[in-house]
Parts: sequence; structure tokens; C-alpha cells
Amino acid sequence: MSTSLVRGRYVICEAGVDAQSSRVIPDGAIFQRDGVIESVGPYDEIKSAHQADPADVELGGAGFVVIPGLVNAHHHGRGVSTFQMGCIDDCLETWILSGWGRRPFDHYLMTVYTAIQMIESGTTTTMYNHAQTPASGLADDLSEVLRGFADTGMRTAFSVYFRERNRVVYQDDQQFIAKLPGDLAESLQRFLSAVNLSEEEYFSVFRSLHQEYAGRPESRVTVLLSPSNVHWVSDDFLLRTKEEAARSNTAIHIHLVESLYQKEYGMRTWGHTPVAHLNTLGFLGPEVSCAHSVWLTDADIDIMAGSGATVCHNPSSNLRLKNGIAPVNAMLAKGVNVALGTDSTALNDDDDMVQEMRLAAKLHRQPGLQQPALNSHQALRMATANAARPTSWQDKIGVLEPGRFADLVLLDLDAMTEPYMDADIDVVDTLLYRGKASHVDTVMIQGEVVVRDGTFIKMDKSEVLREIKEQFSRPVEGQALEATRLAQGLTPFVQEFYKDWGKAEIAPHYGYNSRV
Amino acid sequence: MSTSLVRGRYVICEAGVDAQSSRVIPDGAIFQRDGVIESVGPYDEIKSAHQADPADVELGGAGFVVIPGLVNAHHHGRGVSTFQMGCIDDCLETWILSGWGRRPFDHYLMTVYTAIQMIESGTTTTMYNHAQTPASGLADDLSEVLRGFADTGMRTAFSVYFRERNRVVYQDDQQFIAKLPGDLAESLQRFLSAVNLSEEEYFSVFRSLHQEYAGRPESRVTVLLSPSNVHWVSDDFLLRTKEEAARSNTAIHIHLVESLYQKEYGMRTWGHTPVAHLNTLGFLGPEVSCAHSVWLTDADIDIMAGSGATVCHNPSSNLRLKNGIAPVNAMLAKGVNVALGTDSTALNDDDDMVQEMRLAAKLHRQPGLQQPALNSHQALRMATANAARPTSWQDKIGVLEPGRFADLVLLDLDAMTEPYMDADIDVVDTLLYRGKASHVDTVMIQGEVVVRDGTFIKMDKSEVLREIKEQFSRPVEGQALEATRLAQGLTPFVQEFYKDWGKAEIAPHYGYNSRV
Repeated sequence: MSTSLVRGRYVICEAGVDAQSSRVIPDGAIFQRDGVIESVGPYDEIKSAHQADPADVELGGAGFVVIPGLVNAHHHGRGVSTFQMGCIDDCLETWILSGWGRRPFDHYLMTVYTAIQMIESGTTTTMYNHAQTPASGLADDLSEVLRGFADTGMRTAFSVYFRERNRVVYQDDQQFIAKLPGDLAESLQRFLSAVNLSEEEYFSVFRSLHQEYAGRPESRVTVLLSPSNVHWVSDDFLLRTKEEAARSNTAIHIHLVESLYQKEYGMRTWGHTPVAHLNTLGFLGPEVSCAHSVWLTDADIDIMAGSGATVCHNPSSNLRLKNGIAPVNAMLAKGVNVALGTDSTALNDDDDMVQEMRLAAKLHRQPGLQQPALNSHQALRMATANAARPTSWQDKIGVLEPGRFADLVLLDLDAMTEPYMDADIDVVDTLLYRGKASHVDTVMIQGEVVVRDGTFIKMDKSEVLREIKEQFSRPVEGQALEATRLAQGLTPFVQEFYKDWGKAEIAPHYGYNSRV
Repeated sequence: MSTSLVRGRYVICEAGVDAQSSRVIPDGAIFQRDGVIESVGPYDEIKSAHQADPADVELGGAGFVVIPGLVNAHHHGRGVSTFQMGCIDDCLETWILSGWGRRPFDHYLMTVYTAIQMIESGTTTTMYNHAQTPASGLADDLSEVLRGFADTGMRTAFSVYFRERNRVVYQDDQQFIAKLPGDLAESLQRFLSAVNLSEEEYFSVFRSLHQEYAGRPESRVTVLLSPSNVHWVSDDFLLRTKEEAARSNTAIHIHLVESLYQKEYGMRTWGHTPVAHLNTLGFLGPEVSCAHSVWLTDADIDIMAGSGATVCHNPSSNLRLKNGIAPVNAMLAKGVNVALGTDSTALNDDDDMVQEMRLAAKLHRQPGLQQPALNSHQALRMATANAARPTSWQDKIGVLEPGRFADLVLLDLDAMTEPYMDADIDVVDTLLYRGKASHVDTVMIQGEVVVRDGTFIKMDKSEVLREIKEQFSRPVEGQALEATRLAQGLTPFVQEFYKDWGKAEIAPHYGYNSRV
């Protein structure tokens, strides 16, 4: 049995949609026992209620603000970023290609590093979406990733994405290959075969992991299903996923209209949007979360709202990969549950969710007095309560209240407000305008302190960095070099393929500037 | 006589528009004598050329990247931010009102604090635009601001803005006042009278400062003219400014179509855009720099390009104050000189130009393979060479080359690239993707080291913060409280005034999302 009492000048128990609906306790405290919150309230009350049974440790104090641990609702790992591995931000469709030549890496080390980075900046849960790797090594890779998360203490909603078609451009792989010069065609054929995974293998891996972790509620892991995107799998696979999710009582994570071209693929293929297509299939529902969702039309937003699906908004990634700005204000107005994630491509290339919340808060401020603007409460809610929903811990994280896990973060409020802060300013605004990852002082996951004085304490981060450095100093192997050459060779063909795409008229959700 | 040799693994001498046009020296060095760069080149060459006459000190080394000192091209001071003083981000027109109730502050201390913040994050020059204060105290306020900049060593392009009409809404002050209830009208009348400044007084203050600093080239100060915005002064004042600038051989800084409503004011008043109006007056020219410039039409951009005027882009401020996203890509395509500034309203509320460069670089990435996207070189150029132009030190700062001032910054490249960086990635990309203010190690202004090991060394920052804290702990005085009440009383009338504004059709420069 282990208990702690966590005190803050403010405890932000739950972010609402405005100052009225947010629940904030001035000079508040949380009492947790064995990782579960037992009580939340004014410090004096909580303290005196436990006079006979005092907490093992007392944390925080008047210099801190306590918030629910942040939830990164869309993430692909990669502590050493894609950029660091040599991929310049580009249009999604060519950027993905450039990533083919990434050097292989140690899944355990990379997971540990990415988890430490996230935890030190206040993230306690991540929705990790594993990039499909060859069937031969998949089970080993997954177990290394899961071991990495486990060793850091990170709570993880875990999925492996499945991608079986239209893998180079938004066209059947064999049709695309048929138009390539012989050597390039052969090289591509080889590359694609190597990453092939059958549907049976996919579901078998899912079931085995899901079963394992469903039986270990203490594991901090849930296992989700993940068709990579509408156009990257068959309709049949989407339906099988939906059935499997119902059978296993788990959730589904999918990418959706991330780029303009993905929307156009729908229009060209089915004569309607990818969202309308998913709707026709009966795929959408409250168990489904959709990353990106940039190119949603008004009608799509109505469908999403009606289905109860979650959108995982990725503002940094959407800008970096030339995908645009998702119409978050329109989604919120219709009642869509919008969560927030970095997609391993955050503004500062560091998976900092504090910065990501701020970017979201500032990006969705539509010009004009009567036009909507995301407020600080909504932005924090997107990274906490809203983001909890698609993780399968909807009632267990994202809010600080009795019965939920003690996943929480203490930030240095004195540093945040130095040298002055107007007394009338709401603490949620203070956090969203001025909070930085560097203000994170203490992080607790399921009652366990994993960051103290801003430093991760479960492992030696410098040792992790040293090992990564050592591994990355070795020369790149033949296979990665071949993939790099392949990607470079394919790029002009990919550009040629899309040359007539993206010409349709658009009518913006947000009026950010005007040619007339 | 004082000399130094500054070495970097890379010396970024000049940011161009792409990797080809940027000038970067691997293992480079700069030799400066008495604040002026004498030579730039490979370290070995520079070192051996000075064998007989070695530098007094040698700075930097293989762990650093050296860049030209950053130039913040639009700034209003205020180390304690408007937010910290109680103003929540809002639509520009109501946000300005909320600022009326700001507590008075010590101009010297606030200037010192804002300068230290900027310098520690790599800014060596700021275009400071002073908010008009009553004639009675103006000269004293200005001398305190100038003393503050001088004591920190910050290079300053200094201007006082002039605002004489349409000060509450975009309508004649007396017409607006006539529709207010008696007490509010009286209170507003009093408030406006108190900040009145005559044109004669304005030009007299300008001439005296300009003369003083023109005679002191060692002062690190240039003095500019500044009509606040097209609609805030008379056409006659704009023309007088233009003449005075020619006579004094100085530059002009103005706000321009910052908000949608400012553009609409032009359409309602003159039947054409504010830019077209300035063009009709013959006001624009290479000596003119225009902050914001968000609501430029295609025709406006052609006018701006033809005039040789500079646009000072303020991405954070434009988002925060609900003004939108300036069409920077369209401006650059037409050859407009675009500079960068924080407007004292940076993304993280801290005037960090490294973060501002990154925000700019990520914000202007239009969806679609063939659509333009700002690259890292252009973003760095906007904060260096392009930003130098409107400061009146066009040939003296922004680029590291012989004859220019030794204004430069060393950033910790090892920290920026930890634990790995692909060898093929350009150093300008590395800086723009991963550089942070916290990587700033050394800052030199005119040969003087003002930051060492990341810390400002000319003054004790903690003492400055302590003094500000002490001053701000005093109760707010009667005048500020009255202004707060006035602003709160006026807000509904301002909202009512604009209720039919902002209804015109727009056609976006950037296709970031679409309703259809």
C-alpha cells in the first residue's frame, strides 16, 4: 500500500469548454492510494480527513499548478525524429516515400527515448500507432516497443496499423508499378513484398496482444485495432476490423482525410468523400478515432458528429506535411469529440504537448468578432478528457476525480507567472498562454512519481542517449540505402501522378486571408 | 581597440532563399575589431591571417553554429506582457480597448526586461514602436525607454506612433461618442483628451531625437517616423510624414490592414483598399515598412511589390488577435521584402524570435505538391537580411560580412542535434526545425559579448525581475481603474458598431481546408 498527497495552488481537476465548466480547486489537493485517486478537494479538508492515516509522501505546494496527465492522442514513436533521420518536411505523399530510407533502429531504445521526452513534457498516456513492419520481425518489434513503454511507466493505447494497397500513390500498386521503368519496378516490387503482412497475420497478432493485456489491468496497456486509412485497406478489412472491435470490446484508430489528395481519392473512386464512404459501410462509431481529419466537409462533420467518433487533431503535423488546418471550430460546434496529438511531428520536433496545446489554441482563432476561437479550456480539454476517450480508459484518465488513475502533472506556476500575473486571469489561461515543458516539475503515473525536479527518474536518460548515439554512429546498412535510392527514383513518378490532382474548387471553413 | 575571433562548426553568413543562395561556411570564423567585422572565412584561414595580430579573445568552437543576430521587425516593448497585465487575446478591435486599463509601468525597467528577454533568445536589434502617451510625459517616457535599451546594449530602430482619429472604432471619435450614454461619453472624452498629441508636438519630438542620434553613430539607435495606421491619421499627416522622412533621410514604420475590419474601413471610406489609398497618396516606397499586412489582396500585393516597401510579418500576433494569416508566399512570389517580428505578442508570450521563425516556416505550407511552402532559408532571411532593411541599418546588420557590425549569435549545435542528426541535412534546416532559445549560448552586439553561457551578463536579471515584482505589487491607481471601467463600458458599443462588418465574400490565398 502506498499513498501520496499532492498539493497545488490550483488543482485543475477537469478542463471544460470555458471557465464556468472547468473544475478548478484553489489551494487544492489530491489523495491517491496505490495509483487510484481517493479524494480531491481543498488542501485543508483533504489533509485533515487523513489525519489518522497520513499519506506516505506529500508533493507539490503553493508554487505549483496540478493538471491531469496529458494524453497524446496520435503518435508513431521515433524519439529520434524523422527529420533527424534525414526527411525534410514535405507534402505527405512524397514525405512518406522519403521515410522509406530511414535507417533501421532499436525499437526498445527508441521507445524509451520517445517516452522519456513525452513524460518530461507532461504526457502520461500516448496512443502509439506502430508502423507496419514485415511479418517476420513484427512480433519481436512489438514486444520491444511494449517493453520500452513498460520500463518508462508510460500508459499506452497500443495499435499496429495495417496498410495493404495504394501504398505508393493513391492507385493500385500493380497499376502504378506497370508504368515504371523495369529496374525501378523490380526494386519497388521487392520493397513492397518485404513489408507485406496478411490480414490473418494482422488479426492474429492483434488477438494475442489484446488477450495478453486484457488479462493484465495493472499493465497500463490497452490494445486497439488500426486500419491505416480508408484507401490503404479494403472495405472488407474495414468491416472485419469493426466486427473484431465489437467482439473484443476494443477501439479502432484510423488515419482519415489527412491530405487534400486523400479526399480527392474518395471523390475519384466512389464519387463521394472518404467519410461518406465510411458512413455507407457503417464503419464509424463511438469506438472509432480518426487522426488528422483535415479535409472534412460540412457534410462530413455532420456525419462524424452523428457517429460519435473522435477526431485526433494534429495541428503541427498538418502544417509540416502540407496538409492544412483541420476545421476544429466547426467540429466542436457540431459536438465532435476532438482530441489532440503530435503525430511524432510536433512544431519543435520534440513531442511537446504543452506547445501543441498552445499551437491549437492559437491556430483556431477565426477573424471577426462573431467568429469562433478555440479557448484555453477547450485546448486543454482536447489534450485530457477528450483525448482519454479513444484510449479505452475513458473513465480512468484525463480528469482528476475519485476512482480515476493518479496520472497527473505538477508545473511550476511561479516560473510561469514571473515576474507578475494579473490576479483576475484564469489559471487555465495562464497555463495555455505561458506554460512550457520546462515548467514541468513532477509527473505521476498511476501513483508512481516518474519525474522529479523536471527530470525523469526511472532510468538514466543520458545513458539512453549515449546508447542511441553509439548505435546511430554505425554505417547505414544496404537495405536502407537501397530503399533511399528507390524512394528517390520514385519521387518524380509520384509527382507526375498527382500533377492533375488538387484542382477542385474549395470554400474555406476559416477566412484567414483573401485575394479580393 | 578590441578584437575577437568567433568560431563555429558552421557560420551562417547570410540566409538566402534556398540552400544554394545561403552562404554557409563549415568550420568558419569571424574576426571583428571594435564592433565591425573585418573578415569572415574558414577558421584556419582567418586564424593564420591573424597570427601576428591575434584576437584578444576567441569564442565558440566546433559545438556551435554562428548566425547573424536576429532582428525583431515589429515590437512595442512590454517585458511584462499585455496578457500578464490582464488582457486576454481577443479580436484586435476589442483587445486594444482592454489594454486601456493596463497599470502604468516604469518605462526604464520594462524596456530593460524586454530587451534582456529578446537578447537571451538571440535578438540583437529590435524595431521598437512606442505607444503614444500624453504630450506632457512623452519626452521623459522616451528617454527612459532609450536609456533602457542603451543599458542592455540592444540595437534599436526607434519610433513613436502617432494616432489621432478613429481611436475607439473605425469611425470619427466625436460621431461615436455622440451615440454613447452621457457618463460613458464624458469618461471617453476625458480619456482621449489625456492622450492627445498635436502633429507639431509629434514632429518636434521626432526631430529632436533624430538629430540627437544621427549625430551619435556609436549609439546603436536610429529614429524612424510612424503614423500608426492609415485610418488612425489624416492623409495630410501621412504626406507630412513622407516629406519629413525624405528631409531627414529616415524610414517610416506603419501598421497596415492588420484586421479584416481595417480593410473594410478602406472599402467603406474610399471604395478601395487601404493599400490602394496609400498608393494614390504616393505614400509607399522603399523607406516604408508595414507591420501585419494580413488582408492584402492580389492587387495590393502588386502595389506593395512595385513600391519596394517592406512587410513586417507577425504570425503569432496575427493568430492571437484574430487577424488571420498574412499571404506571405504570395508576397514573396511577387518580390515583396518580408521581415519578421513578434509584435510583443509571440506564440509563447516571450518575444522568442527563434520560435517565431519556426512558426512562420510551418504556417506557410500550402497544401498540394505544386503549392508553395516557405523554406527554412527564407524564414531565417525574414528575421535577418530582410528585417535589416527597414531598420536604417540595411547594409550594417543581418548578414555576417566585412564592414558590417559584429552582431551575432552562437547556438549550441550539439544540444540541437542530440542524439543524432543525418549528415545530409542542411544546417539552416537544423536550426529552423530544432533550434530553441535555450540553445542560445553567446550573443555579441557590435563586438560586445552581452550573453555568455546563455545568460545576459551586462545586468543582473534577477534584480530587474525583483524590482518589477516590487513595483507591480503596489495597488493599481485610480486612473488605470477608471480606464478599465471605461473600456468595459465601451465594449458592447464597439461590438454593436461592427455587427454588420466582415460579411464580404472572401477568396483565400491559401487553401487550408474546405467546406465542400
